[in-house]
Amino acid sequence: MKSIVIHGPKDLRVEEGQAGEPGPGEVRLRLAIGGVCGSDLHYYNHGGFGAVRLKEPMILGHEVSGHVEALGAGVSGLVVGQLVAVSPSRPCGHCRYCAEGLRNHCLNMRFYGSAMPFPHIQGAFREVLVADAAQCVPADGLTPGEAAVAEPLAVCLHAARRAGDLMGKRVLVTGCGPIGTLAIIAARRAGAAEIVATDLSAFTLDMARRVGADRALNTRDEPDALAPYAADKGTFDVLFECSGSAAALAGAIPVLRPRAVVMQLGLGGDMTIPMTAVTAKELDLRGSFRFHEEYATGVELMRKRLVDVSPLITHTLPLAEAESAFHLANDRTSAMKVQIAFA
Amino acid sequence: MKSIVIHGPKDLRVEEGQAGEPGPGEVRLRLAIGGVCGSDLHYYNHGGFGAVRLKEPMILGHEVSGHVEALGAGVSGLVVGQLVAVSPSRPCGHCRYCAEGLRNHCLNMRFYGSAMPFPHIQGAFREVLVADAAQCVPADGLTPGEAAVAEPLAVCLHAARRAGDLMGKRVLVTGCGPIGTLAIIAARRAGAAEIVATDLSAFTLDMARRVGADRALNTRDEPDALAPYAADKGTFDVLFECSGSAAALAGAIPVLRPRAVVMQLGLGGDMTIPMTAVTAKELDLRGSFRFHEEYATGVELMRKRLVDVSPLITHTLPLAEAESAFHLANDRTSAMKVQIAFA
Amino acid sequence: MKSIVIHGPKDLRVEEGQAGEPGPGEVRLRLAIGGVCGSDLHYYNHGGFGAVRLKEPMILGHEVSGHVEALGAGVSGLVVGQLVAVSPSRPCGHCRYCAEGLRNHCLNMRFYGSAMPFPHIQGAFREVLVADAAQCVPADGLTPGEAAVAEPLAVCLHAARRAGDLMGKRVLVTGCGPIGTLAIIAARRAGAAEIVATDLSAFTLDMARRVGADRALNTRDEPDALAPYAADKGTFDVLFECSGSAAALAGAIPVLRPRAVVMQLGLGGDMTIPMTAVTAKELDLRGSFRFHEEYATGVELMRKRLVDVSPLITHTLPLAEAESAFHLANDRTSAMKVQIAFA
Amino acid sequence: MKSIVIHGPKDLRVEEGQAGEPGPGEVRLRLAIGGVCGSDLHYYNHGGFGAVRLKEPMILGHEVSGHVEALGAGVSGLVVGQLVAVSPSRPCGHCRYCAEGLRNHCLNMRFYGSAMPFPHIQGAFREVLVADAAQCVPADGLTPGEAAVAEPLAVCLHAARRAGDLMGKRVLVTGCGPIGTLAIIAARRAGAAEIVATDLSAFTLDMARRVGADRALNTRDEPDALAPYAADKGTFDVLFECSGSAAALAGAIPVLRPRAVVMQLGLGGDMTIPMTAVTAKELDLRGSFRFHEEYATGVELMRKRLVDVSPLITHTLPLAEAESAFHLANDRTSAMKVQIAFA
Repeated sequence: MKSIVIHGPKDLRVEEGQAGEPGPGEVRLRLAIGGVCGSDLHYYNHGGFGAVRLKEPMILGHEVSGHVEALGAGVSGLVVGQLVAVSPSRPCGHCRYCAEGLRNHCLNMRFYGSAMPFPHIQGAFREVLVADAAQCVPADGLTPGEAAVAEPLAVCLHAARRAGDLMGKRVLVTGCGPIGTLAIIAARRAGAAEIVATDLSAFTLDMARRVGADRALNTRDEPDALAPYAADKGTFDVLFECSGSAAALAGAIPVLRPRAVVMQLGLGGDMTIPMTAVTAKELDLRGSFRFHEEYATGVELMRKRLVDVSPLITHTLPLAEAESAFHLANDRTSAMKVQIAFA
Repeated sequence: MKSIVIHGPKDLRVEEGQAGEPGPGEVRLRLAIGGVCGSDLHYYNHGGFGAVRLKEPMILGHEVSGHVEALGAGVSGLVVGQLVAVSPSRPCGHCRYCAEGLRNHCLNMRFYGSAMPFPHIQGAFREVLVADAAQCVPADGLTPGEAAVAEPLAVCLHAARRAGDLMGKRVLVTGCGPIGTLAIIAARRAGAAEIVATDLSAFTLDMARRVGADRALNTRDEPDALAPYAADKGTFDVLFECSGSAAALAGAIPVLRPRAVVMQLGLGGDMTIPMTAVTAKELDLRGSFRFHEEYATGVELMRKRLVDVSPLITHTLPLAEAESAFHLANDRTSAMKVQIAFA
Repeated sequence: MKSIVIHGPKDLRVEEGQAGEPGPGEVRLRLAIGGVCGSDLHYYNHGGFGAVRLKEPMILGHEVSGHVEALGAGVSGLVVGQLVAVSPSRPCGHCRYCAEGLRNHCLNMRFYGSAMPFPHIQGAFREVLVADAAQCVPADGLTPGEAAVAEPLAVCLHAARRAGDLMGKRVLVTGCGPIGTLAIIAARRAGAAEIVATDLSAFTLDMARRVGADRALNTRDEPDALAPYAADKGTFDVLFECSGSAAALAGAIPVLRPRAVVMQLGLGGDMTIPMTAVTAKELDLRGSFRFHEEYATGVELMRKRLVDVSPLITHTLPLAEAESAFHLANDRTSAMKVQIAFA
Repeated sequence: MKSIVIHGPKDLRVEEGQAGEPGPGEVRLRLAIGGVCGSDLHYYNHGGFGAVRLKEPMILGHEVSGHVEALGAGVSGLVVGQLVAVSPSRPCGHCRYCAEGLRNHCLNMRFYGSAMPFPHIQGAFREVLVADAAQCVPADGLTPGEAAVAEPLAVCLHAARRAGDLMGKRVLVTGCGPIGTLAIIAARRAGAAEIVATDLSAFTLDMARRVGADRALNTRDEPDALAPYAADKGTFDVLFECSGSAAALAGAIPVLRPRAVVMQLGLGGDMTIPMTAVTAKELDLRGSFRFHEEYATGVELMRKRLVDVSPLITHTLPLAEAESAFHLANDRTSAMKVQIAFA
């Protein structure tokens, strides 16, 4: 069984490993698709991000789908051969935060492919994966590629939920990579009346338009493109900041109306923010971290064709070309979601 | 200028009247379409509802659209000839509730065609209508019929908003008349993952399916159709009760999960409710009354084709056949929204 | 070891029983005080309430405090000899609602002294009680009587929380028995600016005044006492309905302002409510059921002298006079909280 | 009539002016007390703050109380001779935000003593003040000094409200000047179970203890004083950041639990914040700006002795010594609220 292991910056290897047998409550999956995520890229490019650093080799990957190959004892509700989307989130169920229902803040979380704890939590980019049945969401009717997008979609559904009621709202999205694009999809699904997106790349802005943005503005070419929205203390009810750029955040604040909500989704480390404006406008800047029940919600919405993530999947490469997939994913002028086909 | 005047139960007359000239901030409209609403029917059938009784003749109607014919002094943003949806809501802007932003609770509200205050507030079913420019929402691109549905749509958008975040939620709608049908449309637009509708009529249930309900159950034919949803203390996160029937409400409570929200939209006078279940499940029963900003929101969503109300319009009759329109609207087995063409 | 067992209406017996040994994570307590609650009274007077009926003999009681006598394996944070308040709430920690953090809705709840499930959950009125350490909240500095009030206090803190932000709000409390009185205390602690209470008994209204109500009105003597509060669509932001009387609820609705919250705490079975007013005022009627984390919160607030429940404890009788305690508790004209001293 | 006019940094003058007559809806007041606020100090020390700069001489002051001297036409509810607290907030009542009930965001706000607009809005530090009756809140039973604290109290009540339900919550307050101290009072009134305060000055920490903080920690002497609160991802549910120091904010974040709310009250211009922690903990950083209805709420709470602000008033100087009052107010090691007696 092959898996994709990161050993350090730019040191990515496809290695042989041992697949286990499913225990009680577990299933063995033949992996179909694994999507390359921004955090995978951070490990590949820099060996980590912020204070999170690789201290040992780690299997990458947490955006995966696969076919059920064998069921452990006591598993019901799943069928051999069935396509499932596999949630990377495995909270302990017993800690203080699990008991409060805040499972994404579990004190003992084992989230695939994360170097936050040590030993690291190994990821899901492996040909054969033994997972808890509870992680597996039936994905009949979806392509394996769509099913693998359930993870970043869940991130954005969770953020959209934390943004509060979006129906009829005016929404600004800064940064139109995969997360920004899925934020557009989520905001539209939640009833946003107007969605304006900004980015610096024609490619990503075109994608923003394809998935439903009413307007997509290139703030590299037109730095003042948002200016008309600043009238009367601002226009937008909600900002999804998906660029991780302090400049994007600062540039958006004048066009946010009083009491607007800022969802910070881009990971930008320390950021300098115009706190006087935050105070005077009574803005509400909220972090959003991963997801829990939104994973299954996303799969359900896709299966009912209430959201369509297929335009995002721009490239699919075989496992043998895994490193090329990472190179491609680094190029924001031509790639959106790059996926690796495991089978 | 002709208008539709109710004098008492079953005493509906098309009468000649005088159209005024638009003052400052006002516009004169040539009415296009007027939709017959449940409250219009109550006046026609019974001379009122609950404690609200006709005490003088009253022009009916509050679901209207028209074309701008003349602009009063100081009006901007509207163009002669343009189709507009006309909101029936005219809050005073100065009372305690207006100052708090709760304009639908205005102490001096003048809502078209309402016998609550005396003298009654005359309605909008007249060939020529002088309205405040602030009531007129440009409806370019819509049919006059769709524009006239903006009013009941706004009722349901307001209720959906009061129900809280709906994305990914399981929603039950009891009663599939125009309000129930629009509640389905609103809940879907706000991101509901599953929508189940119940009614006693095959015609309305078919409409529920057409506008997006995942399932539509006839509880006359199958009284226990909801039973499977009662497992584990219930399934649905939100109930839109649109029938006004205490039996429908009581029948729905076992299938609502703890902390579910009940939006009571059907007008049923006094209702007996199983308060022990409301307490034990910590249900949240919320009234919803009219709307304010949701009127413009609804028009915007229709213009962007984010909601489609056209299937609801089952009948359009000329002004000369106004009384037939009321008869038709009374028949829930074949009519959904019945509209009267004024021009 | 003696315990208080209900065998049927008016058939209350003090019986000998066997105390167990504390297992891992458990403690053995010598009971100090047990308070008689309204549900205990229902079992005593009628053998149950609503659909809940005694089907076998059941130890009563769920408002208790005691001293730690022995610690089971692995218990930390408790000391032999220490006074503890004992929460009657024992959720399973694994079901759907526990996983969501809604522990008061646990599908497998074992709440002391409840005939809802069968076999019934035996209560806590026993001289020696083996409890989970997690149920025991250190109550140093409180009297055993105060500690035993932690349970109904938690009920009211939970309701106050579900009522939303109370700071500066105008609050009406209908029904001034123990729950109404504690609702006054909870609302005041949460910052209510004005608290008006109603009841039919001079004794309970006097208690309402003692614990902080700004006004206490006898609606038996003065049926129109609330009328001045009806101006401009109503005054009160929040109603705690603690009487379980449909008349009290209906009488309060005219003095509630639009968007007011109604917390239904009194258990009154089916209730007829003026739904047209609920709709037109957009009232928000919320059930409130038991509590979870509010139990420890209540003990902490009492220990810091931020709330004082001592005025409520009007009678304390020895275990030998248990039946007299139930008689006394039935008399709302002279008794508020009646407690039984077990040691 | 004398008033206190700032001409530029350190250029404060007591000048003669002309008092007007009260028009319809207005009252003439004889000022009693004016409190020196942080923004007054900014004008005095630096001629402004951030982008807000003095461009013309401006009467300072917005924390005032006075006695009614004459009533304009149509004024009711006020009595000559009565002490009133005077709100500095004068929203227009007609703009977009006033119509939504967000009066503190009024597009045409005339808030006493503000150089944000030009011409500047003149302040209230004048012996005779003509004010709108709507600004005057009867303060019978309060000292004039307490009445003048209604303004900063309202700031903190508004912030406490924006923080959401505080009952039973653990609250951290960083910075114990007048705003931090009043935040402690507000949080306690709203039911906080535990309040920990930090500052660098023994004087202010002593005040924090006097008004109810459970613990007051000197982070100058003990930089790691908060460390024990960092266990299990943090302790505090809410932070009131009242220092305006990025270091204080950054130091507090590790002790905030997931989903904690940060109310930013200190004005610190641009601030660098650890956004990765904000995201990973899903913190909710909310600006809070002035107040509206909380002004009357604060007066009511003081009159009912539900809050006591009197310990804050450390110095009262006569008008003739106005400049000394500003010097004193600059000294955070010995002065909390410094007030100027006008009569």
